[in-house]
Amino acid sequence: MNEIQNIVLIGAGNVATHFGIAIQKTGRQILQVYSRTESSAKQLAEKLNTDYTHDLEKINREADLYIISVSDSATGVMAVKLRLNDRMIVHTSGSISMEILRKCSGSFGVLYPLQTFSKSREVDFSTVPICIEANTNENLKKLKELGEDISRKVVEIDSEHRKILHLAAVFACNFSNFMYRIADKLLSENNSEFELLRPLILETAMKVQEMSPKDAQTGPAIRNDERIIIDHFKMLKNYPELKSIYRILSEGIKGIRE
Amino acid sequence: MNEIQNIVLIGAGNVATHFGIAIQKTGRQILQVYSRTESSAKQLAEKLNTDYTHDLEKINREADLYIISVSDSATGVMAVKLRLNDRMIVHTSGSISMEILRKCSGSFGVLYPLQTFSKSREVDFSTVPICIEANTNENLKKLKELGEDISRKVVEIDSEHRKILHLAAVFACNFSNFMYRIADKLLSENNSEFELLRPLILETAMKVQEMSPKDAQTGPAIRNDERIIIDHFKMLKNYPELKSIYRILSEGIKGIRE
Repeated sequence: MNEIQNIVLIGAGNVATHFGIAIQKTGRQILQVYSRTESSAKQLAEKLNTDYTHDLEKINREADLYIISVSDSATGVMAVKLRLNDRMIVHTSGSISMEILRKCSGSFGVLYPLQTFSKSREVDFSTVPICIEANTNENLKKLKELGEDISRKVVEIDSEHRKILHLAAVFACNFSNFMYRIADKLLSENNSEFELLRPLILETAMKVQEMSPKDAQTGPAIRNDERIIIDHFKMLKNYPELKSIYRILSEGIKGIRE
Repeated sequence: MNEIQNIVLIGAGNVATHFGIAIQKTGRQILQVYSRTESSAKQLAEKLNTDYTHDLEKINREADLYIISVSDSATGVMAVKLRLNDRMIVHTSGSISMEILRKCSGSFGVLYPLQTFSKSREVDFSTVPICIEANTNENLKKLKELGEDISRKVVEIDSEHRKILHLAAVFACNFSNFMYRIADKLLSENNSEFELLRPLILETAMKVQEMSPKDAQTGPAIRNDERIIIDHFKMLKNYPELKSIYRILSEGIKGIRE
């Protein structure tokens, strides 16, 4: 039996919510939910049918693992306030070093799920890569066992490489969503429907599930089709910001060094 | 019975291939494939089990419809060379006006499939929006009947709006694929695997199948998380082009006007 059985969630946002649900499915117990905001703590605790608090002093001291899923800046603040002796604590952030937790406990690490979470969408955690790191081999082994009960893809990644992954994810997820948003804006301001683009967006993502993005690249820039590019500049004459974005990305597609 | 039964494909690239396959599935006949390059014409004709030519003079004159799927610049050239009397001809391009075909025939229009096609991937054409336009109501009706036998989503769109759709598709498809490519580059140059990002990329596209891209936006820029943005600038110090792209997109996410 894995030594991590009883868990306290610190934070009640999207990541804490999806982790809490996935952990309960493994048969482990969420002992308590802590959030600075009582209503958030209560809401998640009710979803998980467990206890909650918004008072740091009342955090349950008996858990095998504390998972801290709050904003990056709040993680630093919490790390100073929490004192857990040698109870294990992990954070779930892509961009913070593991070392920030050294002050809280002698056992610490990271459980970073590489996915975008929304309150309103269920996530199949079994397909979500979980990046783990810990301060000792023994702790790494415990996190690996927990991770593998949740996901088919658990990988050991140090803080340095996790930051690179997080940066890459900003491009692949946040910035590609922004491309959808620009498309939505152009269509809605010209009496067309974003709906028409949805199959294209899905297929674009489906293609790179098996191909490399390099092989999947299509469009006027990769074909060096200057006539269309000039046409598009003309169409964007009332959108100077979008024109700059179109230009820099087309230049990038033409010039990217492999 | 629809009046379009016998079709000649002019061009043997990705769009011609996928259209040819989809049209055969409706029970219609592909009479012939024409391509300037004999080997391409032959290859597609064998796939469709039909006739082929690479000689413009030998194009079958008896078809109900000619579908011209060649590069945008070649479409203009073909439009000058072909003389079809009143046989109907359509092109499949997002960015060319329907009027370019007026010289070929008295019956002309557009069948623009809003999808990204690769030779190696099968496409479920029933989910691909087909944008149609024609020079008369009667021709529009014929194209609509053909389109609806292929796809569940056939929409009438004029040349002006089709160009806007095509521009929006460059952002939503070509540029989002470029974001995947940048992520791939960052990871491979730092000993990490693109594989880890695939579930994230798919979920990012899945989210906007039901939500608006505005509601789906996540990441440091929308949260105004300057600490992470500055960290990412530092990490990109050896990638000046990517740093410029990161900056302009983050500014865009913060500033986009709705």
